[in-house]
Amino acid sequence: MTVDLSPEPAVADLARRTAQFVREVVLPLEKRQRSAAPSEAVRRELQDAARAAGLFAPHVGPEYGGHGLDMRGRAAVFEEAGYSLLGPLALNVAAPDEGNMHLLEAVATDQQKERYLRPLAAGDLRSCFAMTEPAPGAGSDPRALATRAERTSGGWRIDGRKWFITGADGAGFTICMARTSGSAGDAGGATMFLVDAGNPGMKVARHIETLDESMFGGHAELVFDTCEVPDDAVLGEVDEGFRYAQVRLGPARMTHCMRWLGIARHAQDIATRRAGERELFGSRLGELGMVQQMIADSEIDIAAARGLILRACWELDQGDPAAQSTAIGKTFCAEAVWRVVDRSLQICGALGVSGDVPLGRFLREVRPFRIYDGPSETHRWAIARRALRRQASELAR
Amino acid sequence: MTVDLSPEPAVADLARRTAQFVREVVLPLEKRQRSAAPSEAVRRELQDAARAAGLFAPHVGPEYGGHGLDMRGRAAVFEEAGYSLLGPLALNVAAPDEGNMHLLEAVATDQQKERYLRPLAAGDLRSCFAMTEPAPGAGSDPRALATRAERTSGGWRIDGRKWFITGADGAGFTICMARTSGSAGDAGGATMFLVDAGNPGMKVARHIETLDESMFGGHAELVFDTCEVPDDAVLGEVDEGFRYAQVRLGPARMTHCMRWLGIARHAQDIATRRAGERELFGSRLGELGMVQQMIADSEIDIAAARGLILRACWELDQGDPAAQSTAIGKTFCAEAVWRVVDRSLQICGALGVSGDVPLGRFLREVRPFRIYDGPSETHRWAIARRALRRQASELAR
Amino acid sequence: MTVDLSPEPAVADLARRTAQFVREVVLPLEKRQRSAAPSEAVRRELQDAARAAGLFAPHVGPEYGGHGLDMRGRAAVFEEAGYSLLGPLALNVAAPDEGNMHLLEAVATDQQKERYLRPLAAGDLRSCFAMTEPAPGAGSDPRALATRAERTSGGWRIDGRKWFITGADGAGFTICMARTSGSAGDAGGATMFLVDAGNPGMKVARHIETLDESMFGGHAELVFDTCEVPDDAVLGEVDEGFRYAQVRLGPARMTHCMRWLGIARHAQDIATRRAGERELFGSRLGELGMVQQMIADSEIDIAAARGLILRACWELDQGDPAAQSTAIGKTFCAEAVWRVVDRSLQICGALGVSGDVPLGRFLREVRPFRIYDGPSETHRWAIARRALRRQASELAR
Amino acid sequence: MTVDLSPEPAVADLARRTAQFVREVVLPLEKRQRSAAPSEAVRRELQDAARAAGLFAPHVGPEYGGHGLDMRGRAAVFEEAGYSLLGPLALNVAAPDEGNMHLLEAVATDQQKERYLRPLAAGDLRSCFAMTEPAPGAGSDPRALATRAERTSGGWRIDGRKWFITGADGAGFTICMARTSGSAGDAGGATMFLVDAGNPGMKVARHIETLDESMFGGHAELVFDTCEVPDDAVLGEVDEGFRYAQVRLGPARMTHCMRWLGIARHAQDIATRRAGERELFGSRLGELGMVQQMIADSEIDIAAARGLILRACWELDQGDPAAQSTAIGKTFCAEAVWRVVDRSLQICGALGVSGDVPLGRFLREVRPFRIYDGPSETHRWAIARRALRRQASELAR
Repeated sequence: MTVDLSPEPAVADLARRTAQFVREVVLPLEKRQRSAAPSEAVRRELQDAARAAGLFAPHVGPEYGGHGLDMRGRAAVFEEAGYSLLGPLALNVAAPDEGNMHLLEAVATDQQKERYLRPLAAGDLRSCFAMTEPAPGAGSDPRALATRAERTSGGWRIDGRKWFITGADGAGFTICMARTSGSAGDAGGATMFLVDAGNPGMKVARHIETLDESMFGGHAELVFDTCEVPDDAVLGEVDEGFRYAQVRLGPARMTHCMRWLGIARHAQDIATRRAGERELFGSRLGELGMVQQMIADSEIDIAAARGLILRACWELDQGDPAAQSTAIGKTFCAEAVWRVVDRSLQICGALGVSGDVPLGRFLREVRPFRIYDGPSETHRWAIARRALRRQASELAR
Repeated sequence: MTVDLSPEPAVADLARRTAQFVREVVLPLEKRQRSAAPSEAVRRELQDAARAAGLFAPHVGPEYGGHGLDMRGRAAVFEEAGYSLLGPLALNVAAPDEGNMHLLEAVATDQQKERYLRPLAAGDLRSCFAMTEPAPGAGSDPRALATRAERTSGGWRIDGRKWFITGADGAGFTICMARTSGSAGDAGGATMFLVDAGNPGMKVARHIETLDESMFGGHAELVFDTCEVPDDAVLGEVDEGFRYAQVRLGPARMTHCMRWLGIARHAQDIATRRAGERELFGSRLGELGMVQQMIADSEIDIAAARGLILRACWELDQGDPAAQSTAIGKTFCAEAVWRVVDRSLQICGALGVSGDVPLGRFLREVRPFRIYDGPSETHRWAIARRALRRQASELAR
Repeated sequence: MTVDLSPEPAVADLARRTAQFVREVVLPLEKRQRSAAPSEAVRRELQDAARAAGLFAPHVGPEYGGHGLDMRGRAAVFEEAGYSLLGPLALNVAAPDEGNMHLLEAVATDQQKERYLRPLAAGDLRSCFAMTEPAPGAGSDPRALATRAERTSGGWRIDGRKWFITGADGAGFTICMARTSGSAGDAGGATMFLVDAGNPGMKVARHIETLDESMFGGHAELVFDTCEVPDDAVLGEVDEGFRYAQVRLGPARMTHCMRWLGIARHAQDIATRRAGERELFGSRLGELGMVQQMIADSEIDIAAARGLILRACWELDQGDPAAQSTAIGKTFCAEAVWRVVDRSLQICGALGVSGDVPLGRFLREVRPFRIYDGPSETHRWAIARRALRRQASELAR
Repeated sequence: MTVDLSPEPAVADLARRTAQFVREVVLPLEKRQRSAAPSEAVRRELQDAARAAGLFAPHVGPEYGGHGLDMRGRAAVFEEAGYSLLGPLALNVAAPDEGNMHLLEAVATDQQKERYLRPLAAGDLRSCFAMTEPAPGAGSDPRALATRAERTSGGWRIDGRKWFITGADGAGFTICMARTSGSAGDAGGATMFLVDAGNPGMKVARHIETLDESMFGGHAELVFDTCEVPDDAVLGEVDEGFRYAQVRLGPARMTHCMRWLGIARHAQDIATRRAGERELFGSRLGELGMVQQMIADSEIDIAAARGLILRACWELDQGDPAAQSTAIGKTFCAEAVWRVVDRSLQICGALGVSGDVPLGRFLREVRPFRIYDGPSETHRWAIARRALRRQASELAR
C-alpha cells in the first residue's frame, strides 16, 4: 500500500457524469437567465434534472439518497459541479446547505435528522447557518461571540444579531450559534440551536447588498429578539458549539474550495479559448508571451490548489481535524482562484469586462471568498502560530 | 532654477477648494443615490454646484470658462475631483468629455470650437470618442482599424462598427476615427470626423453590460452604416488621425490616472478609518501587522503613482509626446489603484464586500482601467521595445 | 482502491532514518567546514557514513545496492536528504549522478551498466551530463544543439562546446549529447555518448564562476575537439538522444525539486526558530503580523510544492511522461523555494545576511534553480502551449 | 513658480560627467579586479582619478572641496556614480563616509570639522558609524540601545558591543552611539561620540561574513570595553543622539537609494543588451513577451523609484524631516532594485548566474539593502502608523 492518486472508479464515474450534466444541462440554463441570482423555479428545475441524472446530493449517505462520498470523493465531484455558478445548487451541494447536511449527519439526533436533514438532503427545504456577527461580534475571532442564549423553563431564549447569513431568507430552518457560558471575548461555551422558520423571535432585518450575488437567498442580517426555542432545538450538547463549528468548518472550507476551483477552471477555459481564436498584432493571442505567462500561471495555480485540497481531504478522511492543512488549502485556494479569474479576464480584454462572457460575474463572486470563511490574514495568523509551535516543540525535544 | 515640486499657489488653492467641494457637496449626494449610474438631473445639479463654486471645467482656457490648467495643474486638481466617482462629472472633467475638450482645443478650427467645444466646456452637451472596435478591429493594435470613410461628393461616408464607446448614448456629438487610406493591419491613414447626434447613419446598437457602471451614459456599441458627413466634419487634416489620437491619448491616459488616484486615496481613507476603529483579537485592526503591511503598501503605491503621473505631466507640458513616461505612468497607476482598492476592501473584511461601504463598487470601477486605454500588457510591450531601442542606440554610438 | 497519501511503511522508515542521519551526521559536519564546496575527503567520509547507516543510493535497484525507490519513494527520502546541502552527496543522490544512474538503469546495455552504473551507484566514481551549450547552442531550446558527432571507421568523432556541465572536473565519465542528424535549429536526431575521463579529445576549458557554489565539482565549460569514441560508447540507439533526454529530464526535474524542498524546510526552520526567540518592540518576532505572514506564506509554499511533486511522481510511476505535471511542479517549486529562502532571510534580519546562519548561502544556491533545468519562462511557455492545445482539442470534439 | 523637474544646469553637467567618468574609468578597473572588495590601492587610484576629473566629494561644501550639492543634486549625481559598485568609492560618496560627512557638516564644532570632516572629505581617512547592536540591542528598534556611556572625570567611558559596522576596520575614527540616560527599551537619551582609531578601549572583534562583499572595509563587530574618550569627543549635545541620528538617517536612506538605483540601471542595461543580441526559438530574446514583461516592469520600477527619491529629497531640502517620504522611498527602492536585478539575471539565464556578467554579484550586494537601514517591514510599520495617525487627526477635525 502506497501513495495512490487515482480516485475510485465509482467516484471517477460520478465526476465524469457531473461534468457532462453541467455542460449539457446547467450551463445552457445559466446562459438563458440574465440575473445572477436564480429563482426558486430555477432551483426546482435544476434539482429535478440532477435527481433524474442520479447526481443529487452525492455527499450524504445512501439512507438520505446520496452516494456517501467521503471528502476525497467530494473533491472530485464538487469541482465538476462548481464549473457553473449554478452547478452546486443543482446537485444540492451548495453552501450553506451542504455544510449543514454534513454537520447534521455528524451531530444531530435521529429525530433531528428526520426532521431537518431528510428534507434538506431531498431539496424540499433550504437552511442557513447563523454564526457571523457584525463587529465587534464573532467574525474572524469566534470568541467575540455576542449572541446569547439563556435558559428558560422548558427551553432557551436567544438574543443577538447576525449578519452575512447566507440563504437566510426563505430558509426552512436556521442553525444559530449562541453563547451559553462565558462572555464576549472569552472562549467560554457556545451552543448550536435549530430554529424553525416562522419563529416570531427571528427576523430578517435586511438583505445585505454584496459584491457577490449568486448565493441562493443572498446574505441577510438576522435579528434574534426574545427568540424562544424548546430544549430539543439544541444541536448536540450544550456548550459544545465551538467544537461542532470545527466539525463543520474544516470540511466546509474545503468544499468551498472545490466549488470555486471549478469556477477557476471555467475561467481558464474561457481565456484559453479566446487566446486560441483572437488575432492581435499578427499573432494569435495565445502565441504572445505575456498571455502564455498568465495561462501557465493559472494552470499552476489550479494544479497546486487541487493538490492542497486533496491533502486536506485525505487528512479529514483519516479522522484528523486537519486544522493546518485546511487553513493552508483554504488560503491558497481563495487567493489562487482570484488570480486565475483575474488573469482570465485580463486575457480577454474589453470582452472580459463585458457581460458577453461571465468573467466579470466570476470576479465578483470569488472576491469575497478571500474573506468569507475566515480572511486570508486570519488563516495566515493561525498557520504561522502552528508552525511556530511545531518549531518550539521540536526544540524542546 | 532647479527641481521644484510645489504647485503654484493658484493651483494649490483650486485643488484645496475642489477637495472641500467634493467632501461637502459631492459625497453627500453620492451617498443619497443608490444606483451607480447618475441621472441627467444629478449631472445638472452637480455641475451647477461646481459652476457656482468656481470649479467648473478648470482645464479649458479662460475663453471657455476654465482656468487653463496645464497637465501638472490638472494632476493636482483632478486627483481631488476623483476622490468621488461623481467628482469628475461635477467638474466636467470626466472621460471622455475632458479628453475631447483637450483634443478640440488643440486641433479644431475656430468654427468647430464654437460649435462643439464651447457647449461641451459649458456642460450644455456631452460627447463621445469612437475609436475602439470589436475584434478583430482596432483595440490594442490601432493599425487594425476597420471602420472606413470614403469620399463622396461634398463629404464622406463612414461605415463600420465601434464598441466600448463611453457616453455614446445621449452624446451631442461623436468624434469618430475612420480609415481613409491603407487597409486593416497597415498603419495607413486615419481621419477624425465630428458626427452630430441624430445623424441617421449612426446608431447605438446596444448598451454593453460591463463590470464598471459609473461612466455617464455607459459603454455602447455604435454602428456607422452609410453615415454621411460634410467636409467640415473633418477634425484637423485628413489622414492625420493617428497623430491626433496621440495628442489625445497621452494626456487622457494621465487624466484617467489622476482621477483613479483619487479613488485609491478614498479607498485607503475608508480602510485606515476602519482600521482605527475596529477591534479584533483584543487589538485595534490597525495594530495588526498584516493590516499595517497592507496600509503601508497602499501608501507606497499612491505615492509612487503620484510621482510617475507628475513626471509624465511635466514632460507633456514641455511639449514632449512623453510616450514612455505616460505608458509607464498608466501601467503602474492602473495596477496600483487596483491593488489599493483590493487591499482596502480586504482590510474591511465582510463590511468591505457589503454595500455599506463603496469599496465593492470601487473595485468594479477600477478593474477595467487595467484594460481600457490599453491593457497593461500592451503598454509593457511598448515600454520594453523603447528600452531595447534605447539600449541598441547606445551600443551603436 | 482510492486516493491514499500515506507512504508505504518501508519508505516512511527510510525517510525517517534519513532525516535523523542528516541531523546527527551531516549537519554537524556541514557546520565544521567553512567553504561551500566539499572536498573529495568529505565526500568519502559522508558516503561511508551513509553506507554504514544503510541509506546509500536508495533509488537504484537492489542489484546495485539500493532500495529501488520509485519516484514517490524518492520524494519522501530525497526531501529529507536535501535538508542539508551535503545530504544528497552523502546519500549519493546528488545531481548529476542521481539522474545519470536513473538514465543508465533505463537505457544502458548490461555491459555498460557493469562498467558505468555499478561504480557510480557505489560512489566509486562520479559522472557528468554534457548537454547544455553556450549561446546560440542548446539551452532552453534543445533543437539548437550544435555539438556534432560524425561516424568514423569503428566509432564516432565528437566536436563541440558545452557549458554549465556540473561535476565535469573529476568525473569518471561524461554522458555527452551530440547531434547525429539534422542541423542546429531542427529537431533532427541526437545521440548520447559515454566518454571516459582521460579521453584526449575532451577537455575542461574552465571552471565557470557561479552564484551557487555547492555542487560537487562545480560547473565547467567542456570542449570536445576531435574526441574519438568507439561504437559501444553509444548509449541506447543512435538518433534517439532527444527521447532519452526526456527519460532523464522529467524525473531529474522532480528530484531537484525534492532536494531543494529540503533546503526550503531548513530555511523555514531557521526562521521560525529565530522568530520564537528574538524580541523586538516588546514582542517576540513571531508575534508580529508581518513576520507571521511570511512564515505562513512559506508554509503554504512548501505544502503546495510537495503536493505538486507528489502528483508528478505518481504520474511518472504510472509510466506517464508527465510532461505537464513535471513542468508545473518544477516551475512552482523553483519559485517557491526561492521565496521561502528569501523570506527566511528577511525574518532573520542582519543575522540572516551574515555567515552566522546559512541563509545567504542557501539564497545563492537556490537562485540558479529558477534557470537550471529550464528557466521558469521556458516551462511556462510549454505549460501554456499544452493548455492551449488541450482547449483546442476539446473544442474540436 | 510651479512644478519643475529639470535639474539645474550645473548639476546636470556634473551628473553627465560622472556618468562618463564611471563608464570610462571606473568600469574598466572594476572588470580588471576579480574580487568584490577593493584594496586600499584601488581606492587611492580611483579617488585620484575622480579628483583629477573634478568630481570628488561633490556633496560637501566648497570649503571642503565639494560642490555643496543639495539632496536633489545628489539624487542626480549619486545615481550615476552608483552605476558601478566602485563608483561611489571613487567619488568619496560611499556609505558610511558620505553620511558621516553630512552629519559632521550639520552638527560638529568647527574644531571637530577641522579634525574629522576635512580629512574625511579629502579622502585622507575613512570613518564608520557605530549604532547597530546584536540582538537584543539597537537594530530596527533604536530604543533597545544597550551600549552605555558613563561620565568620568574629564570625559566618558563607553561599554558595549556593536555589529554590522561598515568600514570599521581601518577607519580613522568611529562615530559611536551610546546611551547616556534611560535604559534599554526606553527612548531615554543617547549621545554620539567621536572615537579615534587606536583607542585601546575599542576593538574589532571580528569581520562578519556577509552575503554582500563590496563595502570597503566590510562589516565588523566592534567591542567597546572601558573605552575612554575626552569631553570634546561628544558630537553635538549630550542626550541628543537620537535626534542627530534622524539628521543622518533620513538623507542617508536616500543616498543609499540613489546609489543602488544606479546598480539597478546597470543590471537593466546588461539585460536589455543581452535581450537585443541573443536568439532563442528563432526570435531575439527581446521579442519574447515574457522577457518584454520583465524589461518593462524593471523600467517601471526604476522610474517609480526615481520619482519617490526625488520627492523625499525635495522635502528634505525644504528642511522637512521627511520621515514618511524617506520611509516610502527607501522601502520601495530597496524592493524595486532587488526585483530589477533579479529580473535582469533571469533574462540572462545561465550567463546571468555566471561570473561572466556581474549580475550574481549585484544580487548579493543589493539583497541586504532590504534589511540594512531598517528592514522593509519596520519601515512599513512606521508608514502605516503615520497613515493611521493622519486619518485619526482628520476625523478629529
